[in-house]
Amino acid sequence: MSTDHLEYDAGTVSALAATSIDVFDTTLRDGSQQEGLSLTVDDKLRVAEQLDYLGVRYIEGGWPGANPKDDEFFKRAPHELKLDNATLVAFGSTRHPGTKAEEDQVLRHLVDAETEAVCIVAKASSVQVRKALRTTLEEGIAMAYDSVSYLVSKGLKVFFDAEHFFDGYLAHPKFSLAVLKAAEEAGASTLVLCDTNGGMLPSQVESIVREVKSRSGIQIGIHCHNDTGCAVANSIAAVQAGATHVQGCINGYGERTGNADLTSVIPDISLKLKIDTIPAERLERITPVSHHIAELVNIPPRAQQPYVGSAAFAHKAGLHTSAIARMRDAYEHINPELVGNGTRFVVSEMAGRSTLALQAERLGISLDSDAIAKAIEQLKRLEHIGYHFETADGSLELLLRKAAGWEQEFYEVESYRVMSDHIPVGNSDILIGTMGSSKAAAFTATDSSEHPMNYESTEATVKVLIDGERVIATAEGNGPVNALDAALRKAIGGHYPELRSIHLVDYRVRVLNSAKGTASATRVLIDTTDGTRVWTTMGVSENIIEASWQALDDSIICGLLSASGRLRDTDEGCL
Amino acid sequence: MSTDHLEYDAGTVSALAATSIDVFDTTLRDGSQQEGLSLTVDDKLRVAEQLDYLGVRYIEGGWPGANPKDDEFFKRAPHELKLDNATLVAFGSTRHPGTKAEEDQVLRHLVDAETEAVCIVAKASSVQVRKALRTTLEEGIAMAYDSVSYLVSKGLKVFFDAEHFFDGYLAHPKFSLAVLKAAEEAGASTLVLCDTNGGMLPSQVESIVREVKSRSGIQIGIHCHNDTGCAVANSIAAVQAGATHVQGCINGYGERTGNADLTSVIPDISLKLKIDTIPAERLERITPVSHHIAELVNIPPRAQQPYVGSAAFAHKAGLHTSAIARMRDAYEHINPELVGNGTRFVVSEMAGRSTLALQAERLGISLDSDAIAKAIEQLKRLEHIGYHFETADGSLELLLRKAAGWEQEFYEVESYRVMSDHIPVGNSDILIGTMGSSKAAAFTATDSSEHPMNYESTEATVKVLIDGERVIATAEGNGPVNALDAALRKAIGGHYPELRSIHLVDYRVRVLNSAKGTASATRVLIDTTDGTRVWTTMGVSENIIEASWQALDDSIICGLLSASGRLRDTDEGCL
Repeated sequence: MSTDHLEYDAGTVSALAATSIDVFDTTLRDGSQQEGLSLTVDDKLRVAEQLDYLGVRYIEGGWPGANPKDDEFFKRAPHELKLDNATLVAFGSTRHPGTKAEEDQVLRHLVDAETEAVCIVAKASSVQVRKALRTTLEEGIAMAYDSVSYLVSKGLKVFFDAEHFFDGYLAHPKFSLAVLKAAEEAGASTLVLCDTNGGMLPSQVESIVREVKSRSGIQIGIHCHNDTGCAVANSIAAVQAGATHVQGCINGYGERTGNADLTSVIPDISLKLKIDTIPAERLERITPVSHHIAELVNIPPRAQQPYVGSAAFAHKAGLHTSAIARMRDAYEHINPELVGNGTRFVVSEMAGRSTLALQAERLGISLDSDAIAKAIEQLKRLEHIGYHFETADGSLELLLRKAAGWEQEFYEVESYRVMSDHIPVGNSDILIGTMGSSKAAAFTATDSSEHPMNYESTEATVKVLIDGERVIATAEGNGPVNALDAALRKAIGGHYPELRSIHLVDYRVRVLNSAKGTASATRVLIDTTDGTRVWTTMGVSENIIEASWQALDDSIICGLLSASGRLRDTDEGCL
Repeated sequence: MSTDHLEYDAGTVSALAATSIDVFDTTLRDGSQQEGLSLTVDDKLRVAEQLDYLGVRYIEGGWPGANPKDDEFFKRAPHELKLDNATLVAFGSTRHPGTKAEEDQVLRHLVDAETEAVCIVAKASSVQVRKALRTTLEEGIAMAYDSVSYLVSKGLKVFFDAEHFFDGYLAHPKFSLAVLKAAEEAGASTLVLCDTNGGMLPSQVESIVREVKSRSGIQIGIHCHNDTGCAVANSIAAVQAGATHVQGCINGYGERTGNADLTSVIPDISLKLKIDTIPAERLERITPVSHHIAELVNIPPRAQQPYVGSAAFAHKAGLHTSAIARMRDAYEHINPELVGNGTRFVVSEMAGRSTLALQAERLGISLDSDAIAKAIEQLKRLEHIGYHFETADGSLELLLRKAAGWEQEFYEVESYRVMSDHIPVGNSDILIGTMGSSKAAAFTATDSSEHPMNYESTEATVKVLIDGERVIATAEGNGPVNALDAALRKAIGGHYPELRSIHLVDYRVRVLNSAKGTASATRVLIDTTDGTRVWTTMGVSENIIEASWQALDDSIICGLLSASGRLRDTDEGCL
């Protein structure tokens, strides 16, 4: 791995006093506001473990008293969570207007959560205090002061989230600053400036944080949302203006457009600004932790995600791959291993000779330069009619092997046929009447539709030659592809028992040139696994059944190739 | 709609000289480098139409000479693209080291593309010139000068993409500036500074662009990648430093982590910096265009995307929704209608009810509150199993009509059947041998695949009752859906001659719960037109044939409903 990535001239980054930043994760509180994200208490405990393993300084666990789930979390956390590095924080709001802090329910729940630190939110915008809280500005300030004082008196470290701070400051700076001053005087440890609506740009955040920093004697924090697409940049701008506490969520989870994505913020600050965030030796954990948490919250990771995405260091253009082969930092802004990620080459029509040669070499296929030229030409021709090899490593491997002169000898397909019969709702009497009940039993009733209880029967027949023998097999399925898969396995499964451990795991369809309607070309991708590896194969045809068959056929051949490869004690094959 | 969203204090945004910015879209060139994104020439033409409709100033169409697809695009574009607002740009590189510009292939292809403007890339980093191009710095500068001069001499407007400019400038500013100077002296119209590795932060971009701006007399442009999660912010920073040409891609498509997302950059500049980008009255097109292009490239839109995402103005937290009810700008940084988006409350039956009532009213369907409740319940049940009525206006109309007691009486389907026979390559002798050449004639030979010259025959049989008469019709097609469409039309076309003017125009397939493999549920969407209007219908089933049939059946019923509505001289119906 080359290490000669360019060092940035420190002069272009504002002069910085800070040498370290406290990372405050709010995935379990603000992050869980994301639409479609719902965590059980067990999930929350497991996410917290991951955050601690990553090395964030604070983990905001939820809002005790707001819902039974968060109550249970704070009850179980002290017994079930062994935090190595992080401090657990309970979230709440200031007292309600017109109440006393010591009698307020919200504050009582915060104290009862028995964490070392709490974070309370207060409205730091005069418009919000008047219109949303419907109280006076004086009471808004008193709510902040009283609540912080009370919590400090209970021995708690208090983070003060100044909600709507930036909007409030722009409209009525005196009030917003007065709220901060009250919290500081009451003993808060940190004034966290929140861009609650997410509408700020970095230049605004930078100048406002700088102004606040010059007026206060305690730590300044930043909490950004991504509504202008600038949450990460706004967090960085705040740090450059003097903030030393940064709130955000793993993978940018959060309401609307999400909170600042800590998987970008942390490496940006650590690697670009050269200021400590999480312990330096743990930075390489950020990619696995990002993916692990995505798994826990059941939201597919985004390939394009900076630093941690599967495509973050993937190279496609031929121009680039040949340059990368010469010089690792030509198209990589950091060494991907620093964040636990890696370089990946993607093959497509844009890729030139060097990518294809690399790929063949990796698979142990020896291709001379004529064979490479032939493979490139075929790849371009096929991609022109809709094939897309970069996502179909299995079909690409078969193409490369064929270019090297290989032919598959597992089986020969003579023909295949699909028949699919459907009798809509209400016509089951027809079914029985015309077929007799024994044949009708072959039909299955489905309730998957607005046209409920369709009776349907789909079967496929496959005829193959295998070791000189002609085999005909018929099988049923939930649909044409499922039936073809079953029939092919039935036909050849006796000769290839290894097929039992090979399963289709994903099936994707894309219609190409769709302006032509139902006569358009269809591209089918199938992912298959043998339990250890996953390979993707592809078919393209105007007929979706033909396209599916091609992908299926390639999928099975890759599986057999891989299994026979293992028998021959090599570890190459489809992957 | 409240209009009292906070105005930002101009003082917090740097003083700006520019009053308008040229938006340069590179979705069709740099965007298509994204892994998993592959566009046919038809797709490219349709994306270009959308970009023009949105109102970008320049559309970079591809790299003529680099692959057959881009060649075909530039051949067809002048005839098939009616650009209303945008100028098409061809992309290429400077001449190769040691060649003459007038003899260079790359430059010749650029001239042959016959666009008004071209964009050429040159390495603006001394390290890159030495290590990747393996030539001298003098030749690097000469390549830039000669290439620009030559293209200008051919009457072309030349955008000059200074690749690796920021990294180059930080390492060896003299060389990077000399490359720019050469391009300027040779007559380039714009110096586009590229953060090719995407490793910059906004403060760096701002100071470097400011420096370049002070040294050059022509337009400065910016081209950012998102590797630090700051592509949008870096583009904004460049504009604040004096750049007036911004390159990016719709939805942030692009290699690795993507290019600057124009769906954020455009509204940030227009609405936050108050500098013109696309025509102001077209800004509301940005959400539909973003979604339309996502559909064309078949990458699911990201709900969290700023401004245009389906969750960008969605509110979940109870705290927020009650506040929003009081005050629209409490948690919305802009009025979502400005960008063609809307406020959405998550888990809010009231919102569902009023939306549905509005929809029914618009279609002239009268629904009492029981019928609405019933419709909502059915809609929720169906959406839970994979239906998605938001994108299927036709199927939604039928659902609403049914809730109002309507039943379609055009035809009744007794059953339908699809048979699809396939004989792979090399087996045509089997075909003739087993069937005789007359039956073999029913098979069509296709060359759409890596498995070329398959013989296949697909037919569908549909049995319907129409005006008391039982009709059985069989028809062939290129695939099961095409055959079903043909058979249904054959069966009922005699009774409904108006079907002749109704055509399917798009067919889309999405596999749901894909972890189950080929037995997963499939959602099919069909767009149909009668020449005036387009409607979308939908089907969901584990069997793709059944799902397609549902969508087809709904499509035809909507068409007949619409035609009979026209006969009755109302202009309602499916739309």
